[in-house]
Amino acid sequence: MPDTAMPSYPIEARNKVKRVHRRGAYDHATVHRILDASMMCHVSYVIDGQPYCTPTLFWREGTHLYWHGSSASRMLRNLSDGQPACLTVAHLDALVMARSGFHHSVDYRAAMCFGRARLVTDPDHKRQALTMMVDRFYPNRTAGLREINAQEFKATSVVSMEIETASAKIRIDGIGEEEEDYALPIYAERMPVRMVLGEPEPCPRLMAGVKRGADLNAYQPGRALDEALVEAYAEAYGTVAQT
Amino acid sequence: MPDTAMPSYPIEARNKVKRVHRRGAYDHATVHRILDASMMCHVSYVIDGQPYCTPTLFWREGTHLYWHGSSASRMLRNLSDGQPACLTVAHLDALVMARSGFHHSVDYRAAMCFGRARLVTDPDHKRQALTMMVDRFYPNRTAGLREINAQEFKATSVVSMEIETASAKIRIDGIGEEEEDYALPIYAERMPVRMVLGEPEPCPRLMAGVKRGADLNAYQPGRALDEALVEAYAEAYGTVAQT
Repeated sequence: MPDTAMPSYPIEARNKVKRVHRRGAYDHATVHRILDASMMCHVSYVIDGQPYCTPTLFWREGTHLYWHGSSASRMLRNLSDGQPACLTVAHLDALVMARSGFHHSVDYRAAMCFGRARLVTDPDHKRQALTMMVDRFYPNRTAGLREINAQEFKATSVVSMEIETASAKIRIDGIGEEEEDYALPIYAERMPVRMVLGEPEPCPRLMAGVKRGADLNAYQPGRALDEALVEAYAEAYGTVAQT
Repeated sequence: MPDTAMPSYPIEARNKVKRVHRRGAYDHATVHRILDASMMCHVSYVIDGQPYCTPTLFWREGTHLYWHGSSASRMLRNLSDGQPACLTVAHLDALVMARSGFHHSVDYRAAMCFGRARLVTDPDHKRQALTMMVDRFYPNRTAGLREINAQEFKATSVVSMEIETASAKIRIDGIGEEEEDYALPIYAERMPVRMVLGEPEPCPRLMAGVKRGADLNAYQPGRALDEALVEAYAEAYGTVAQT
């Protein structure tokens, strides 16, 4: 539930949660927490009336979202000049097998963000963004990497979108039946799902003596990716993820 | 790589993979395999020039995609009459930490499908679709459930979209550096990620003696969700997932 003492995104026609209002939230903390727990988003945009839905990596700074890609990409060529876009993150948290088809569902956390996407043209801003593209996920990693060269810098575009408004929608109900259906002899369960990190596969061509550094500390095998991302975010920005 | 002996989606301006052509594929088998390994997709659509990106559950029958929701939902009210839509599925398979920021990446499998979304209005077709909404994931489960009632049937809308065209994009490269960068004393790794099923949480109000049935056999704790979904698909339709 939105806390009215907290900063919130304005409720407009485009972001108002229409169905099951109690699942909706508009406060920054709830929206940002969902965003910061993900590395991947889906961006919607329109070219000549045709909607596109492109998965991409992204990150957040305050109320701005960033993503990047090849300067030649369809998405980035068409999202450079203030075109409306919608960036969505969804986490699937559980399968819900109920006693009726109607109440089959999933538990999830989703955030939809609306704004206008603009190419980052200022070279210093772009350089800073490309640093955070790495360091937001792997804190301070860029300092130890081979520096970006002029050709790579030119070949990469960065897009920024101020979140004009947004909504979060969260289902954590698990099984929720019609009251009379609980008396039916039908099996029902909630089955959690998580994005889990596997065993690291170090590059087979590592130089002798080169070890995994503190920049990857959040990423441990068996850990949930969303937890690692929130921890890395807090370290990268020196703040809790949702502010 | 597309196999020219296999049925393929037509290559048009909207679905042609622009960047890194070798990662693109258009054959039904590759596209469908990515779709069938997921329960959740993101659907893009346009209302008054504003793009929306809505996460939702979906399933595939042949070259048709289906999703459903409340008859009152924004998406379903606006995707009823042949409006253009784009339905995308993306699987994040690994984080790739390279020796340069430029070559940081992820391994992934993604499919983008283009078509026109239409409300399923024929009651028999709608009833069959609502059955498969459950049975595609949990084969033959509907037969053992409390039947859908008239009010639920009315409150639910089903949308169908024929895939007019589609593309798959797959990155499985892991670490791919500039050749000279392998000589740098910098740590690099690929770290796999997977959506993993957790321990089932049976409903605490189950009737005595009611057990988990064969309809949930594919869903075992510790198993990757994408594998379970492909197995369930094959059982539900009596065919391999990608045809």
